[in-house]
Amino acid sequence: MPAKTANPLDRMFHPESIAIVGASTSNPEGSWVRRLIDFKYAGQIYPINPKATEIDGLKAYPSVRDVPGPVEYAIFNIPARLTPQIMTDCIAKGVKYVHVFTAGFSETGTEEGKRMEAQLKQIVEDDGGLRALGPNCMGIYCPASGMTFNTDFPREQGKVAFVSQSGAESMRLVFLAQDMGIYFSKVISYGNAIDLDAHDFLEYLTDDDETEIIACYIEGLRQGPRFVSAIKRCLEKKPVVVLKAGLTESGAGAAASHTASLAGSKAVWDAFFRQTGAIPANTMDEVADIIQAIQRMVRPQGKRVAVVGRGGGIGVIAADICERAGLKVPAFVPETQNKLLEIIPEAGAGVRNPVETTYGLGGAVDFYRRGLPIVDDDPTTDVILVHMAIDVYGGHTPDLPRIVTEAADALCEKAKTLKKPLAAALFTGGHADTIMAVVAARDKLTNAGIPVFTGVEAASRAISKYASYCLAHSG
Amino acid sequence: MPAKTANPLDRMFHPESIAIVGASTSNPEGSWVRRLIDFKYAGQIYPINPKATEIDGLKAYPSVRDVPGPVEYAIFNIPARLTPQIMTDCIAKGVKYVHVFTAGFSETGTEEGKRMEAQLKQIVEDDGGLRALGPNCMGIYCPASGMTFNTDFPREQGKVAFVSQSGAESMRLVFLAQDMGIYFSKVISYGNAIDLDAHDFLEYLTDDDETEIIACYIEGLRQGPRFVSAIKRCLEKKPVVVLKAGLTESGAGAAASHTASLAGSKAVWDAFFRQTGAIPANTMDEVADIIQAIQRMVRPQGKRVAVVGRGGGIGVIAADICERAGLKVPAFVPETQNKLLEIIPEAGAGVRNPVETTYGLGGAVDFYRRGLPIVDDDPTTDVILVHMAIDVYGGHTPDLPRIVTEAADALCEKAKTLKKPLAAALFTGGHADTIMAVVAARDKLTNAGIPVFTGVEAASRAISKYASYCLAHSG
Repeated sequence: MPAKTANPLDRMFHPESIAIVGASTSNPEGSWVRRLIDFKYAGQIYPINPKATEIDGLKAYPSVRDVPGPVEYAIFNIPARLTPQIMTDCIAKGVKYVHVFTAGFSETGTEEGKRMEAQLKQIVEDDGGLRALGPNCMGIYCPASGMTFNTDFPREQGKVAFVSQSGAESMRLVFLAQDMGIYFSKVISYGNAIDLDAHDFLEYLTDDDETEIIACYIEGLRQGPRFVSAIKRCLEKKPVVVLKAGLTESGAGAAASHTASLAGSKAVWDAFFRQTGAIPANTMDEVADIIQAIQRMVRPQGKRVAVVGRGGGIGVIAADICERAGLKVPAFVPETQNKLLEIIPEAGAGVRNPVETTYGLGGAVDFYRRGLPIVDDDPTTDVILVHMAIDVYGGHTPDLPRIVTEAADALCEKAKTLKKPLAAALFTGGHADTIMAVVAARDKLTNAGIPVFTGVEAASRAISKYASYCLAHSG
Repeated sequence: MPAKTANPLDRMFHPESIAIVGASTSNPEGSWVRRLIDFKYAGQIYPINPKATEIDGLKAYPSVRDVPGPVEYAIFNIPARLTPQIMTDCIAKGVKYVHVFTAGFSETGTEEGKRMEAQLKQIVEDDGGLRALGPNCMGIYCPASGMTFNTDFPREQGKVAFVSQSGAESMRLVFLAQDMGIYFSKVISYGNAIDLDAHDFLEYLTDDDETEIIACYIEGLRQGPRFVSAIKRCLEKKPVVVLKAGLTESGAGAAASHTASLAGSKAVWDAFFRQTGAIPANTMDEVADIIQAIQRMVRPQGKRVAVVGRGGGIGVIAADICERAGLKVPAFVPETQNKLLEIIPEAGAGVRNPVETTYGLGGAVDFYRRGLPIVDDDPTTDVILVHMAIDVYGGHTPDLPRIVTEAADALCEKAKTLKKPLAAALFTGGHADTIMAVVAARDKLTNAGIPVFTGVEAASRAISKYASYCLAHSG
């Protein structure tokens, strides 16, 4: 095991004590104190509220300065106008990390908001020791230490870190990933960033042993060059997915209004992605899909895909979708086609690539067992994409759950023996029964380590971007 | 009401009698005879099978020539090698329409298959009276007359017609549309088209009073010029959505293998869409989405969208997605922004466009009631797109169904009063509870006539393509 990194931010994710300044007495259900208790944060929790002596069974203190022991981390849940005084109190107390949850600063666009933010920033800079997160942000989610900003987040610790300029997007990603069986080491919603900014967290996460994959949501940068060099160093060790929002005129206007960010030109960001090799994503679903591809797929050695599934027309459309995403669906070598013809009874059924398995998912089961090894051996393709068009059943087949389960079981069993990277696209219509059958199959497949996407479009985008990353960062 | 068209194909969809040549005795559950009975086809059904005297309670005949009364329509469910003789029998009997379900012809790529198909084609041409559908196709679904190739299809009659070179894709579209509450007048899976081809059905549907919207799935054309002129004439009366599969190199190879189609170059098809004004779609989900936009939205007068929903970052990404789909998300006029500021309490919340409603779906309900009329009056936007990010809840909020239902109810209520076209994007993660909440909300909204899409990406593509069609075909 490598020696633990000495980055001082490491203790920010594992503080020994947390003070909640402005601990709520009225809504302990959704309060910061209750979140830490519910999430089994193991350190000391100090509620700070001049009007209370006890909150949620814990002794409350009128000020952070009145806490008897040391306070390592403080969360501000107070009106914006009170934050400068409380920041000064924290410095006096020797607090090391402050998370200003409070909003109402520069993001409001008002002079008063900007003035208060500048004042807060000055206090932190003058001190030079304390590190501040925010204001106007959700802060830290770190399941290993029990820190969270949402008690519905999973307790499971994973290998993915997310650095986000948007609180809502960080919630969306955690839940989207959870449904795929993917978990996080650290999530940071960093807001207006008077002190700690995206590049600080990237630098920390580069050497963080708990993190293997990093994703970022960025609207605008305050310190572009530091971000670029942080990303570059990070990419030498770990894949980084970047959703840069505001790359269109419409999006840039929206970003200016959301976080007062200067979105930057598309040309500049195109150059950024080209020069750094960061993996670009356009939507949060795509971020989750790419993370899943990275975490679950064997590294693709190229961008040629073998497409396997039911339905000739579905295969033609799938081939078009793959090529539009930057992949190719080339014909198998004749030897592969001849071997496939032996196990697919109908003459003329697709064996060229895409492979059209026989009608029904029963035929799929048989093909997974006997056909996938043949496809796996074909020398013209690098990746196997299996699609299951559950929607063809329209939710009306009474034994749909059994059929889908059998197909998923057969794929899970065979997947262990394949050499090539494998991905599955399960597409469903909107019928509740097919959706539930797909959810069950998805959980089976992801538990077996197979990445599952909601369709060929989502799958091909993620595969293409991951393959580009692998080809650029070989080794 | 206009006079009924005299197109002779009309009777093909409403025949007075149907003979099933090769009526199955072994699997009546999935048989052609049982389908017609189950679907309440009201005409005479004649099972033809030399080895049976009765099938499914109906008298069976050894040959179509032995049927006592007239036979208007015949379905061939027999081995390919028998089809020439049976075709000759049908001509002798005076059958008007034949559907050759049987496969094993040119699509197999074998010389024998091509030879038999040429022979069948010659027999039909020599007769000059009988019209043939197929071979190698699913045939006709027409809920009004009780004809179907899948008994799980809905009995409801709708306004959409689908002309498809793929049987599986026609099943996918019917079920996808059903889940959106959209139904069909006629669906035709036409296969190898020795006689009746896509353009014949387009010409018929152009004047069909039961059809208001037409969609086509095409891999390749046998008679390009006739298809182009049929589409042009059709578009003078009705919108036509075309999914041309095989436009990429990968897809063209797949199409050659699937239906022996020459896919045609992308340049030729780009020119086709430019010259005809047909609405292009890339996936079957997109076909369904565009149909929904056409059927449910007031005609957009432009491509500028007002985006309304929870989450600042979600709004920025949504604006980017819209612009990438060919739409714009411009700033509202100051008057609109000022009015919105009055009802959105937080200073700095997005009122520029996208509109960031207050946190939670409770805030959404209030915004729908008080904010949507303000957005509706804004002069800089043509369409309102409301997004609900149900996935932010991660499926963990116990009263999620109630919250989502209240939001959907409020939107349904307010939608009636809006002048602008309205669309809703409901996006969910993969948690079963959020999915079910979204399905319930979707049904509520679509029942109220509001088009619902699975995300901003799907919504913006459909809106953009429908708006382009409306701008090109004003009136």
